[in-house]
Amino acid sequence: MSILVVGSVALDSVETPFGKKKEILGGSATFFSITASFFNKVNIVAAVGEDFPKKYVTLLKSRSVGIDGLTVSKGKTFRWVGRYDYDLNTAHTIATHLNVFKDFNPHIPRHLRQPEFLFLANIDPDLQYNVLTQVKRPKLVACDSMNYWISTKRKSLEKLLDRIDIILLNDAEARQFSGESNLIKAAQQIIAFGPKAVIIKRGEHGVLYFSKDAHFIAPAYLLETIYDPTGAGDTFAGGMMGYISRAKTINDLTIRKSIIYGSIMASFTVEDFSVNRLLEISKKDISGRFDHYRKITRF
Amino acid sequence: MSILVVGSVALDSVETPFGKKKEILGGSATFFSITASFFNKVNIVAAVGEDFPKKYVTLLKSRSVGIDGLTVSKGKTFRWVGRYDYDLNTAHTIATHLNVFKDFNPHIPRHLRQPEFLFLANIDPDLQYNVLTQVKRPKLVACDSMNYWISTKRKSLEKLLDRIDIILLNDAEARQFSGESNLIKAAQQIIAFGPKAVIIKRGEHGVLYFSKDAHFIAPAYLLETIYDPTGAGDTFAGGMMGYISRAKTINDLTIRKSIIYGSIMASFTVEDFSVNRLLEISKKDISGRFDHYRKITRF
Repeated sequence: MSILVVGSVALDSVETPFGKKKEILGGSATFFSITASFFNKVNIVAAVGEDFPKKYVTLLKSRSVGIDGLTVSKGKTFRWVGRYDYDLNTAHTIATHLNVFKDFNPHIPRHLRQPEFLFLANIDPDLQYNVLTQVKRPKLVACDSMNYWISTKRKSLEKLLDRIDIILLNDAEARQFSGESNLIKAAQQIIAFGPKAVIIKRGEHGVLYFSKDAHFIAPAYLLETIYDPTGAGDTFAGGMMGYISRAKTINDLTIRKSIIYGSIMASFTVEDFSVNRLLEISKKDISGRFDHYRKITRF
Repeated sequence: MSILVVGSVALDSVETPFGKKKEILGGSATFFSITASFFNKVNIVAAVGEDFPKKYVTLLKSRSVGIDGLTVSKGKTFRWVGRYDYDLNTAHTIATHLNVFKDFNPHIPRHLRQPEFLFLANIDPDLQYNVLTQVKRPKLVACDSMNYWISTKRKSLEKLLDRIDIILLNDAEARQFSGESNLIKAAQQIIAFGPKAVIIKRGEHGVLYFSKDAHFIAPAYLLETIYDPTGAGDTFAGGMMGYISRAKTINDLTIRKSIIYGSIMASFTVEDFSVNRLLEISKKDISGRFDHYRKITRF
């Protein structure tokens, strides 16, 4: 097995200036896994309720996403209701119904305990840490987090950071965690807690990557149409981890290229609701956009 | 003669979270010319009042900036009083005393009427147009503008656009002029008025360049310390035009590189108040930062 993701599978109801959709497929593990499936075999560990539509299970299977770790629990599937205004960088949460996700305590099936690449999507940092204790140390572990955990479970997050390789945060979260408004300083403060690298996501303004002694700046791919930014961050992670998992060696250049692939994948996701756009594209579309990205950033 | 800039020379009083300075050297033509002087001979056309400090004239001369077009008019020098909060992207104007700049009607001295490169800094578009009628068509003309002219002199601006090669705007101005929130669409709408290219400045998020059938994305150079963003846009233009003026041919790659040089020069300007940082650096510092920029954006 190659890539393992632990996170959420959800039903999203989303409204943007370009449309309104009810109970569409969402969740961090969903976006991550469907994206990573373009690059490699990926397994998910997540929980859904008894009401989770069969068509979505079929969909995941059709993308070769391993669902042995997808538990169907008594109760309802996690639901998120949100809205974006014209400033598509900011999600306004209208309602969060955690449902079965409330008691989610990831149990990694025995045959999935030796992943080479592990992505701990945004869940309680204690649970993220707990996953690490269940698996043989992967080649590379990346994690996500959010403002809620930074303010309520800071110590747990600090403990986790010492055990992972790359942490992904958005700019506001990086500033919140470090107490530093300057992102170079913020990144160095976060790295001091243990991770080898920090990736700071800035939405339409691209991505910053910091390691102890270097950094990399990647602008976002410019789009004419952004329909729904939901899932962009997890798609980014899926593209990044997917690309890394295929690389012969993991060095600075591998990481840089993986960041571009992550950005490219996210640029597809936001062009439609849910994972719809990801279901339309081919590997050729991905490499085509990668080549175009190179062209529009070369000097 | 090589580069000509028509714009303002001013005395700025600026407050940022990092300090407060009174009546320091400012103005679009000042930032532009001192920056461009690293690359080529540059002449300014501007007006100051009788109170303009001699030391600043000496300073311009010491940078080999041609001041034959700097008129000393009866009255006081243009003054701008502004403040920046922690969001250094937004300037808050406290006071604007146009003084002699109010009646500025640029007259190009006879021996400066054949510039190879012309930058029309942000003044009334009618005056910008008037400059064009005084000079032999340069190899390349670029202009800046602002929200005030877009709303009050739109027709004049449209007329000007048909006569220039590159227009520089910030993202808010590009959206205002085009009525399009998406910047790709905004740029194409602006290009429809005549210019060969549009450069959209996004402050700490870098620069976008659009021609009819191509675009280029350049992230900003990351800085640990930003003291005062005043003059960043005109510095950018100075670096860009300076670099272009030294190039053997002007093609897409020339423009791309010039945009990086513009960004690099602006990254120095914002590290101190007024033109102070520009006065400290050498050509070696510039090429060093250019090389570093290449390193942190390569993939």
